[in-house]
Order: sequence, then C-alpha cells, then structure tokens
Amino acid sequence: MALASVVNIASTSTAQAGILAQSKGAMTKAVIVDQALKIASSQGLEGLTVGHLAEVLAMSKSGVFSHFGSREELQLAVVREYYRRFEARVFQPALQEPRGLARLQKMINLWMQTSIQELSAGCIFISGAVEFDDRPGPVRDELVRSVQTWRAALKRAIEQAVEVGDLKTDCAPDAMLFQIYSYVQGLHHDARFLQISRSVDIATQSIQQIIDQNRSPRA
Amino acid sequence: MALASVVNIASTSTAQAGILAQSKGAMTKAVIVDQALKIASSQGLEGLTVGHLAEVLAMSKSGVFSHFGSREELQLAVVREYYRRFEARVFQPALQEPRGLARLQKMINLWMQTSIQELSAGCIFISGAVEFDDRPGPVRDELVRSVQTWRAALKRAIEQAVEVGDLKTDCAPDAMLFQIYSYVQGLHHDARFLQISRSVDIATQSIQQIIDQNRSPRA
Repeated sequence: MALASVVNIASTSTAQAGILAQSKGAMTKAVIVDQALKIASSQGLEGLTVGHLAEVLAMSKSGVFSHFGSREELQLAVVREYYRRFEARVFQPALQEPRGLARLQKMINLWMQTSIQELSAGCIFISGAVEFDDRPGPVRDELVRSVQTWRAALKRAIEQAVEVGDLKTDCAPDAMLFQIYSYVQGLHHDARFLQISRSVDIATQSIQQIIDQNRSPRA
Repeated sequence: MALASVVNIASTSTAQAGILAQSKGAMTKAVIVDQALKIASSQGLEGLTVGHLAEVLAMSKSGVFSHFGSREELQLAVVREYYRRFEARVFQPALQEPRGLARLQKMINLWMQTSIQELSAGCIFISGAVEFDDRPGPVRDELVRSVQTWRAALKRAIEQAVEVGDLKTDCAPDAMLFQIYSYVQGLHHDARFLQISRSVDIATQSIQQIIDQNRSPRA
C-alpha cells in the first residue's frame, strides 16, 4: 500500500481536511514505526537505518525524517512501541487473574508464548541489552526503563504470591526474578544462536521447577 | 611501542634475518589480534573496524590488511584467540581436578571468575551470540563451534559427576547445563545492562543451588 493513498483528502472541507491530515500524519507515523520495529527485531536497534527503512516503505529519506527528526528519535519510538505491545499482550491480560500464583503464572505463560513467537524474529529487549550495555544515552535509558518496569511487575507478582500464601514466606523474590529472567534469556540464546530444538521444553520445565520449589506447601 | 621496533633486524645474517622477520611477523600479528580482541569485547565483533584498529595501533590500514586479508579473517582470529585464552584459563586448570563434582565445581568457579572480570569489558561469546544469531557465515560458525565446545566440556563434567556418584542418577545433564549457562548470561545482563550491584551474589548463589539440588545424598 502506497502511504500517500492511506487517506484521500481530495474532496473534503477545510476543517475536515485539517483533521484528516492530522490523522493521516499519525497513521503514516504508525506505519513507519511498525516497519522500523520489524527491522530492529531482526537486525537490532543499531541495525536500523533511515535509508533502509525508507526503501522498504517506498518513501524518501526526507519523508521519514519529517516524522522523526533523527535516527535516535526513531529508535526511541521503536522501544516505546515494543513496550506498549508487550504490555498489552503480556501484562494487561495477567491483571485479570487474582493476585497470587494465578497472576504470576499467567504473566510467565504469556511472556513465554511471546518469547517463543519471537524466536524467529528476535527480541529488541534482549538484543538491545547487549547492543547498549556500554553505550550511554537516551536509547539505553529507554530500554532500561522498559525492562525495569516489566521486571518490577514480575517482582510485585512474586511478592503478592508470598503475601496471599501461594509461595513460601522464605522465598527470595530477587533471586526468583533473576532465575526466571535468566531462563527466558537462555531460551533465546539456545534456540536462536545454537538452534537447539529442545530449548523450549527445557526452558519451560526449568521455569516450572523454580515455581514449584518456591510453592507454599498449602498452595 | 611502535610496531617497527618490536624486532630490530638491521645487523644480522640473512638466515637469522629470515627467522627474525618471520617471528616479527608473528609478533605483529599477535599484537594486532590482542588489540582487536580488546575492541571487540567492548564494541562487539561487528563494531570492530580495520580503520579504528589501525588508528589505535598507529599502523596503516594496509599494514593491518597485510596480516589479515579481510575484516572477516580478523574477526575469526579474534574468536579463536578468545577461545584459546578461555580454554587456558578455565578449562585446562580444571582438568587437574579429579573427575566428578570437584572438576565440575572448578570449571564453574573459574568460569565465574572470568565472567566477573569481564563484566567491565564485555564478553564476545555473549555479545557475539546476539550479533550473529541470524547472520550466517564463517564468524557465526566459529562462534557456535567455540561455545558448543565449552558446553560439551561442561556437560561431560556433569555426566562424569553422575558416573562417580557425586550427582544424583536422575539428574538431567541437558537441563543442568541450560540452567547454569542461563545464570552466567543473566549475570552479564543484570550487571552490565541493568547495573544491579547484587547480581554477582545472586548468580553465584543460584548456580550453587542448582548443584546442591542435583547432589547425590552420599556426596
């Protein structure tokens, strides 16, 4: 679909045209970010160039720049969009479950589902962590903020599961968070880089083991 | 130190000069690889450019190219050198320990020591896995080969610990390998990217937990 044809504003009044031009701008921006996210997932955020993006979208480079003033602004938009989708797919639905193990388990299950789907495309939180680990600046800050928000939500779910008596009172939430998060990273490494086909099963079982080890006897 | 002054061959016989020129070549090559490894550790293998390397070494680009015909050849030399050092520091000393838990524990302890030292500089096996996960070619193949060799050695040490009765007979070596490997990756992620100061303690305790859970009651 050519971007120019997204909204046709030829035969409208000036007021309508103003609103439509605005929404056309927003839609174009959304199409650019969507495509940029696809590229960044497989090539990394640092592999994202305005030239390549413009080519894929059949736009001019200046057309892309008119929506995002710089490559960094585009990278930031990609990180925010990725987080928004992650939150909608993983975090929000889990909040429908009651506090405790049910919610924690739902968060982990949806996260694993998303991770498994991402094994072919790549995940910008995991590649971004390596790309930006010693590259200070706004993109690194935004990545850290997103990852920390998700980790804080997971930790809160673990703590709530202790409070309602589903997990043992001597369970260490920081260690449990580290262990589960490491297994999701290990899954990406083993499945994508080493192409070990059993990785999904081993990672799923290892995460379940962590939950079972911390489960309260009365849960 | 200027590279030209590494070996002075001015006042030697022709035969001696030939040998010295050869060893000078080998030394220059070693100095180039050493510096390239430093750059690749912090900037990634893909961040390694002949231009930057030549600048740091105060050499010409063609001088670097006379030792390594291409950037890819240089990347391959870096991967091999990294593995050679890793093997000498981690794997070889562990073979002095008797088969069983003593050897496995020594391998893990030396690996953790190396990992902790690398937290400031970066590790090319971990960054390389993300950089090359969907970039086929000789560099990816060499990285996979190195990582798989180390993982095979770890798995063999786990299996031997089962054979000599130090680990439980129902211990699953593949799962144990996945779990320990994931924790070392998790340590890099949390310490380098999220800068969580307790990461080293949490990772060390988590790895010890895996060993203790699989320890035979009579060990």
